[in-house]
This record gives sequence, C-alpha cells and structure tokens, in this order.
Amino acid sequence: MKLAILGLGKMGYNLTLNLLSHEHEVVAYDVEPKRADELGREGAIPAYSIEDAVSKLDAPRVIWLMVPAGEIVDELVDKLSTLLSARDIVIDGGNSHYKQSLDRYARLKEKGIHFLDAGTSGGMEGARHGACMMIGGDQEAFDHIEPMIRDINVENGYLYAGEAGAGHFLKMIHNGIEYGMMQAIGEGFEVLEKSPYNYDFAEVARVWANGSVIRGWLMDLTERAFRKDAKLDEIRGVMHSSGEGKWTLETALDLQAATPVIAMSLLMRYRSLEQDTFHGKVVAALRNEFGGHAVEKK
Amino acid sequence: MKLAILGLGKMGYNLTLNLLSHEHEVVAYDVEPKRADELGREGAIPAYSIEDAVSKLDAPRVIWLMVPAGEIVDELVDKLSTLLSARDIVIDGGNSHYKQSLDRYARLKEKGIHFLDAGTSGGMEGARHGACMMIGGDQEAFDHIEPMIRDINVENGYLYAGEAGAGHFLKMIHNGIEYGMMQAIGEGFEVLEKSPYNYDFAEVARVWANGSVIRGWLMDLTERAFRKDAKLDEIRGVMHSSGEGKWTLETALDLQAATPVIAMSLLMRYRSLEQDTFHGKVVAALRNEFGGHAVEKK
Amino acid sequence: MKLAILGLGKMGYNLTLNLLSHEHEVVAYDVEPKRADELGREGAIPAYSIEDAVSKLDAPRVIWLMVPAGEIVDELVDKLSTLLSARDIVIDGGNSHYKQSLDRYARLKEKGIHFLDAGTSGGMEGARHGACMMIGGDQEAFDHIEPMIRDINVENGYLYAGEAGAGHFLKMIHNGIEYGMMQAIGEGFEVLEKSPYNYDFAEVARVWANGSVIRGWLMDLTERAFRKDAKLDEIRGVMHSSGEGKWTLETALDLQAATPVIAMSLLMRYRSLEQDTFHGKVVAALRNEFGGHAVEKK
Amino acid sequence: MKLAILGLGKMGYNLTLNLLSHEHEVVAYDVEPKRADELGREGAIPAYSIEDAVSKLDAPRVIWLMVPAGEIVDELVDKLSTLLSARDIVIDGGNSHYKQSLDRYARLKEKGIHFLDAGTSGGMEGARHGACMMIGGDQEAFDHIEPMIRDINVENGYLYAGEAGAGHFLKMIHNGIEYGMMQAIGEGFEVLEKSPYNYDFAEVARVWANGSVIRGWLMDLTERAFRKDAKLDEIRGVMHSSGEGKWTLETALDLQAATPVIAMSLLMRYRSLEQDTFHGKVVAALRNEFGGHAVEKK
Repeated sequence: MKLAILGLGKMGYNLTLNLLSHEHEVVAYDVEPKRADELGREGAIPAYSIEDAVSKLDAPRVIWLMVPAGEIVDELVDKLSTLLSARDIVIDGGNSHYKQSLDRYARLKEKGIHFLDAGTSGGMEGARHGACMMIGGDQEAFDHIEPMIRDINVENGYLYAGEAGAGHFLKMIHNGIEYGMMQAIGEGFEVLEKSPYNYDFAEVARVWANGSVIRGWLMDLTERAFRKDAKLDEIRGVMHSSGEGKWTLETALDLQAATPVIAMSLLMRYRSLEQDTFHGKVVAALRNEFGGHAVEKK
Repeated sequence: MKLAILGLGKMGYNLTLNLLSHEHEVVAYDVEPKRADELGREGAIPAYSIEDAVSKLDAPRVIWLMVPAGEIVDELVDKLSTLLSARDIVIDGGNSHYKQSLDRYARLKEKGIHFLDAGTSGGMEGARHGACMMIGGDQEAFDHIEPMIRDINVENGYLYAGEAGAGHFLKMIHNGIEYGMMQAIGEGFEVLEKSPYNYDFAEVARVWANGSVIRGWLMDLTERAFRKDAKLDEIRGVMHSSGEGKWTLETALDLQAATPVIAMSLLMRYRSLEQDTFHGKVVAALRNEFGGHAVEKK
Repeated sequence: MKLAILGLGKMGYNLTLNLLSHEHEVVAYDVEPKRADELGREGAIPAYSIEDAVSKLDAPRVIWLMVPAGEIVDELVDKLSTLLSARDIVIDGGNSHYKQSLDRYARLKEKGIHFLDAGTSGGMEGARHGACMMIGGDQEAFDHIEPMIRDINVENGYLYAGEAGAGHFLKMIHNGIEYGMMQAIGEGFEVLEKSPYNYDFAEVARVWANGSVIRGWLMDLTERAFRKDAKLDEIRGVMHSSGEGKWTLETALDLQAATPVIAMSLLMRYRSLEQDTFHGKVVAALRNEFGGHAVEKK
Repeated sequence: MKLAILGLGKMGYNLTLNLLSHEHEVVAYDVEPKRADELGREGAIPAYSIEDAVSKLDAPRVIWLMVPAGEIVDELVDKLSTLLSARDIVIDGGNSHYKQSLDRYARLKEKGIHFLDAGTSGGMEGARHGACMMIGGDQEAFDHIEPMIRDINVENGYLYAGEAGAGHFLKMIHNGIEYGMMQAIGEGFEVLEKSPYNYDFAEVARVWANGSVIRGWLMDLTERAFRKDAKLDEIRGVMHSSGEGKWTLETALDLQAATPVIAMSLLMRYRSLEQDTFHGKVVAALRNEFGGHAVEKK
C-alpha cells in the first residue's frame, strides 16, 4: 500500500527501509530534508513538507508518525486534522502515553479521521527487519492497514489490541516488564562480579542464552555487550529512562496494583543518576548522632 | 560413553532418555526399581542398588546424581566415596547449594575422586531434548565428559564455569534472575488485568513472544499458560520457592550487592503464602490509634 | 482571635474545642447543623450556612476549612471567593494535594484574598490538645494568625514553611515518612510473631517506647494497640490509604528521587487489599510450565 | 550491687558512669589499663586482668561484657568459664547474634554459670543517662540483677524477654526497624531537598519532632544533625552497617516473613558503598544494544 512516514530518525528510517523491502510505496518526510532525499535514493518518494506528503497520498490516506513522544505529536495531529479528510488514518508509532493517545483519538474522531496508537517493540533491528506491534483504535482502520502491518513485523508479531489507547497502554506495560527483566539480569551479573569466581561474562551470557529458562533476546544482547567489552570497564552504570517505566508505575499506583519489581527497577535507575544521595547523608548523620559512628567527610 | 544415572525422577528420567537417544550407554538406578525397569525397556541398563550400578561401569566410572538437593546427596557422596576409585567422576546435576558442592568436592578429592557440580536449566523439556548446563570442578574431569555433555544440551548450551562450586553458583544466580524476570512478567499482566482494557492475555503474550525486546522462553510459556486457562481463574497465586532465590539473596547480602529486584521477587513469594499478614495488622491498628481510621474486623 | 471553622468532623470538632479552651471566638459551621449546635453548647457561635458564618466575622475575616480533601474544598473556595474581601484569610487545614493548594491560592489571590495551606499532624488527640502544623502561603497572612496557631499547637509545634503549597507539600512528605515508619514497625513485629520466641508484644512495644533509638509516638501507639488486643487477633491486616503516600511517591518519581522504602510501604498497602494476586497466578503458572511444579487449585 | 564491667569503650565507659551514679560498685577492666584508671578516678575499682576483675567480686559474681560482637566474646566466655563458678552470672551487653548467644548460654550452662543476653538501645547517651534493655536467659539470673537493671535504664525501659537468645533477638529486630525508620526519614528529606521549595531542614525536623505522628528520638536527632550542618554539605551519604540489619533480613528469610522495607533499607546501604554499579553497567549496555541509547563513557 501507499503511505507516508513522518519522522525519519533511527526508528522511522529503518521502518521505511522495511516497508520498501516489502514493496510498499512510502512517502518519506523529515524536518531534515536530507533524510528524505537519502531514502529517496532507496526508493521512497521524498516529501519536503507535511502538506507535500499529504498531497502525494490517495484517499483513504495513511500517515504514520514516527517522532519522539511529546508536544511534536500534538502539533502534527493538529496540523493533520486540517489537512486530512474523514476515513483517513493517522498512526502514532512512537512511545506516547496512552492517555494522550486517547485525547488525540478523540480530537481526530471529531473530523471522522481515524487514529491508531501503535506500540512498537524490537529496537532498531526490529524496525528494519521485523518487530512486533500492538495497535489500538478503530477496528476498521486497523483492518485497512493490516496487510501492511503483517509484512513489516515478524511472524505472529502484531496484535489488534482493542479500542483507542490499548496499543500504547500495552507498549507501556511491555516496557515496565522490560525494566524489571533488565534490572534482574543486571543484578545477577553484579553478584557474579562480586563473587569469588572469575567468570567470563560473555560465556555466561552465551550459555544462559541457549537452552536455559531465562533465554531470550535480552540475554542474546547481554552476550553481545560483553563480547564488545568483557567487563564493561569502558562505560558508567548510569541508567537513563525515557518515561515508560515511570508511566507504568504511575498507572499501577492508580490501579492499586502492587508492582514492587517494576518500582524498584525504576528507582534504581533514578539512584544511578546520582553520585551521592541526600537520604544517605541523613542516615549517616543519624548514625553519628545516636551511636557515634564516624561519618565520611567530603 | 557409558555412565550411571542415580535418581530417575522428572529430571533424571528425561535425562536418561536424552542420553539414550544420543547413543550413550546408561546404567539407570532409582530407589523405586520400577523406574529402572521402565527405562530398561527404553534401552537403559537397569541397576537395583548403588553397588550394582557402580559394578556395571568401567573405569574411570562416571556417576551422575539426579536427586533433590539436600541430605540425600551427602548420603550418596558418602556411599560413593567408599565404592569408587581415584579418577572416577561424580556429577551432581541437582540444585545443590554451591557451598555444599565445595564441601563434597573436598571430601571426594581426598580419595582422588572428581566431583563436578552441574547446574541444569531448561526444565523437563530441556532435560529430554536439550537444556543448558554450567559445570564446575576439575578441568580434566570436565574434559572427559565434555563429548557427552555436548550431545545432551542445545547448541552452545554448556559452559565449563571454573573451579569447584562455579557451576552451582552460576545456576543459583540464574534462578535469582529467573525469579526477577517472572515477577516482572507477572506484575505487567497484573496491571493489564486491572486496566480498563479487556485484553486477551494469551494474544498479548503471543505478540510479546514474537519480535519484542522481552521475547524469550518465559514469554512463550506465558502464552502457553494463558492458552490453557485464559484468565488463570482455576489456580491460586501462591508462589512457592525451592531455595535458590533465597540463596541468591543471602549470597548478595554476604557480598554487599544491592539486588532489590531479586529481593522483592523473593519477598512477594513469601507474601503470597499468607492470607493475612501480621505487619498489616500492626499498620491497620496504628492507623486506628492515631487517626481513628476504621479497621476491618475478622 | 475570632475565626470560623467550616467542617466539624473528627478533626474540626476537636480543633474547635482546642481553640475555645484557648479563649478564641469560634464561629462553627457544618452541613450537619446539629454539630454546630453541639459546639454552641461548648461556647462556640453556631452558624447555619457559609454566608451566616462569614457574616459573623470581622475584617480581616479568618475562615478555616476542616473538610476532607477533594472537590468540596474547591466548592468552598469558589463560594468564599464571592463572599470574602481583599485581605481576608482562608486556611485549608485538610490533607489537600499541594498542587491543588497552589491553584486555590492563585484563584483567591486574584481577589486579594489570602490562602494558607496548613498541614496538620498529630491525629485527633493533637487536634484537641495540641498538634503540629506546617503552613504555607503569604507571610503577612501567616503573621496575622500566628498567635492563634501558637496557642493550639504543642510547644515548637508549628512552622511557617514558605510560599503557597509549602505547608501541604511538607505534610505530604510527613505522611510518606509515616508510611515507611509504620511498615518498618509492622515488619519487625511480623518477624517476632514468626520467631520461635513467645514475646508479649505489648511489653516489647513498651520497652521500645522507653529509652530506645526507635522510641516515639508511633511506638507509644503500638503499645496501646497491643494492650487492647494482645495478638491483634480481632482485626484483619488490610491497610487502607488516603492518598498522601501515593502523592509522595508520585512526587518522588517526578523529582527522580529514589525512595524505595516509601514505595514499598505503599505497595504493601495495595497488596493487602487483595486476597490473591494476578501476578502470583502468572508466576505459579510459569513454574508449572517449565518445571512441572504443582499449582494450588482454587 | 557489685559487678564487673569488661570493656570500657564508648558504651562500657558510659555504662560504668551510669552505674556509679546509682551507687553500684563497679570493677572496671579494659585491655587498655588507662581506661580502668580513668574510671578509677570516677569511683570505680580498676582491674588489670580478667582474673583480677573476677577476684574482686563476691559470689554470685556478676560480670558484664561490653565488647564488640565477634570472636572476642567467645574468648571471654571461654576464659570466664574457667574462672567462674555455678550461679555466677555473665551478661553480654553487646550486639551479638542471638544464635551465638544461644551457643554461649549452652557452654556456660554446662558449668552451672548463667548467661544473659542483654540488648541495649539508646546510644551513648542512653548508656550514660538511661537506655532501654531487653534481656534473655534464666529468669532467676535476671531476678538477681533486676534492681541494678532498673536503676540504669529509663523508667519502663527494660524487659525480661524470655529464654536464652530472646534479648539479642529482640535487639536485632529493633535495629531492623531502626534501619527502616531511618531510611524513611532520609527519603522524606531527599524529596524535600529535590523539591521546588527552599525548606530549612532543621526547622522542618523541629516541627516534625513536636506534636506530629512521626515524632520521636530519631526526629530529635535529625533536628540536631541539621542544626550542625544545615544541608549536610560536609558529609558523604555513605551508610555503613554493623550487621544487625543484615541479620534481621536473614532471619526474616528463614522465617519466610515478607519484610520489604527492612530489605530495601539494607540494600540501599550497600548501594551507598559504591560509586558505580555493575548492574547499572549491564542495563546501560542493554539499552544501547537494543535501542541505540547512548551510554556514558568513563
């Protein structure tokens, strides 16, 4: 089918190549015209403005947003609501908060335009060669794009998740689980690293990635990381986060769901951003006050 | 090669079939003679006592223990230390604590007998069709059995982990990670279950098992479990544990490793064993004392 | 001084008595006229509508809201904004979210009316005989009421905390700490309860309440609770919560502050609301799938 | 009564002064003779060897050990078992593990010597001016020393906790609670420190220490610490631990008690000992592998 991709960053660029390799026609647009040109050389139809992109599509038009979550999505939705017509379809393939997707769905719905929230997992490799997608919104809009969705994902790798928001909600929870799994793997290797044994971590990850209960893509990637840097000596253990773990915990709190592992995996990320903590200072000062235990001076 | 398996339970039985299918000669013994007979019909050489099993092997004898962790291992090690000779090899394929393996290694070493601690992961399916193994102990003993180990595990699915204890230590940590990953998955589905969306959990697990960052065997099994019982209505959420998660946390405490996710996954298992908690009663009583908040009466 | 109390529930009723005993003139109003009458017999001036209460005050009027956090506060603020004049003072003595207090402050500020957010701690006993208060808002409004505030709190028991919201923010954090301290106490007694020793918990709380590092009002109350019900056999360990612990954690997440103890004390409250958990079912089902471990049937 | 104190460090020294001020006769011994001499000048009877200290007592002799937990206690117990007679009483006032106290009790019991395990809380100030004590062991031995115990503790500040080990067990749990409470306080101030408000922390601690639900000695000490160093700028947040929190968690694990707050307060102490973590490196490396998220280089 013919569709437009707006946003040609790491994810959108690879997604476009993926679509092209499955013989879809892709109108490619980015604020950086060079990126559209680059994909033009790969077979895409470059566009140099939103209007240009829209004008190159046929009704019902399909527009896929592949931009970072945030205000930019609202700007695009607002602009598209003036350019598109009833029965056109806007897909948000980014990591937007599901509540925002609900809101955007409602705004476009007023004009009869469909909005699909598509959570994507699988990283850059997945975007290029097949990821998995969880999609929420109107069933009829999903049905229209399903053949294309089938092409670009791995086998069994997509789901019509239900009404508006259901796709991004599912992706949010996926990421919450991912936080917990990654922290679990990290903690296991931390104990190994402090153990009296002198393990080869890449070899450990290799054996755990083959045949074990905890095998999976994260363990494959763990092996890959240790192959590059055997003790991870070159990097710092600062764990940034891009929001979805926090949203998962906030949602869990709203639903009164006890999610200690997801909570702790998020809090340890925050802890990793600091060299020292104020709570630690308070505890150290208290130990000094009541027990005379020495504090470490700066 | 020719070897004896002592203990023909879920794991030992499947392991024997696995060995037979790779054309190894297996002397099979269990306290329950029927199980040896049954495997005899599959091509194993049944034995009806430890002595009988030992007598049917050639030097250097290889004896694989596949019995539950605990005193029974010590009893077998003690008995075997009187029956075996220098250069014979005893493998403990169970989930023993690595400190006990160190002790058993030392006891057999006095007589020149090798002791290998072999952690096995992959469940019953793995035992039958290929699992992964992490093996500690003397390198020369490992080298002797390596061809057989290669046969019965999946490709890339074994590791000589280092000196005595290194195999069981690694298996312990593997299970600690497993606890964390399973709890993370459970928490994610708990939020889904409490969410306003009406997800088909088997379908969610299916899409997450294909192409996503969190794909892996645990997600395959999650799908399988939901296919059997769509909302898990038939079972209770009581999470038993068999010791390795606890050992992992105790080891982390000894090494002063901060492992909050492994800790919480274990503590939530303990919490699940109780219908009500004493800490909850204390907190409820305190809220009543200072704020007049109603308590729930029994 | 003369002031009005709107809301004569557990806290407002006791606060009024406290004010009367310090010879302040209190106009007392509640949606339930009987409560105003009752306090009338104690020396208060009963009022039967908001308008009535306002009309009985002299400029600058001081109105103290002692109602549950929520919409009712907004309704009162809206109504008062039409009845009051510049330089009058509205105090919110409830557990409102500080962000709402910021909003209410701004709305009243438009008319020149002062809004003070007063967090109160000390329970009903404190409301009656002296609590502690943390107050945010305009300094000049605080200065006006300070003599009255001094009277009704314990010595050293009040603080002008700073600009608008600073009082309720502080109370929120106070409650977050309270959650953690209560859970810590509860956990300690849980271990005692499971221990081989046969402790008399009231006696344990008594000795810890006198001279120990962990002495304080919560331990006094722990003793009191155990004196009434030696093993807390009569109550269930269901830990309800009224919002401030959740707000503390949400605020911590927004500020990227690692607060694991506050997080876990909240999550264990949520856990206590359930007889069984979905995450537990998932974990139990997974253990069954890979290891054949029996699940508990319903 | 007349008794000997062995060990005149921070705690033993202050305890001796406390006993002297209540007109008990104290034989004072330390490996450092100067300390005995110093207390001699305060009215104690200095002793210069264990034998010397024992010889200066009358039957039934009362010997109070005030030495750090560890091997030194065993050495003293062994030595005293040769010097003392049946019905003499040895008190261990340190923070020994209750299982060791059970063992020491049994060893002295063989000779008819009483052993009391006395957990002490209240810090140095408590040792000097009145602390609280939880004492386990034979009731008759406790009865003999009770008048002296009453003198040196605050009112209501001691408890005969039950059979051998019950005192040190109780002190262990007390410290576990203390860990949780301190971490809760620390976390609260951490959120304040990151908040948009500019709080005076000493003033906050002051108001919380007077009239609030969370008032208590720890909050008094928090105020005191902030008075000395308003933002704790001079110290590092490194939280050392001396074992009892770890023992509490280990005991909770053995008893299958869910104690997440105590667990997290301990793990955050371990975390504070490290500038960077290996688990953080693993998570950061994984984020880079699947999502191309930048890692921070060293």
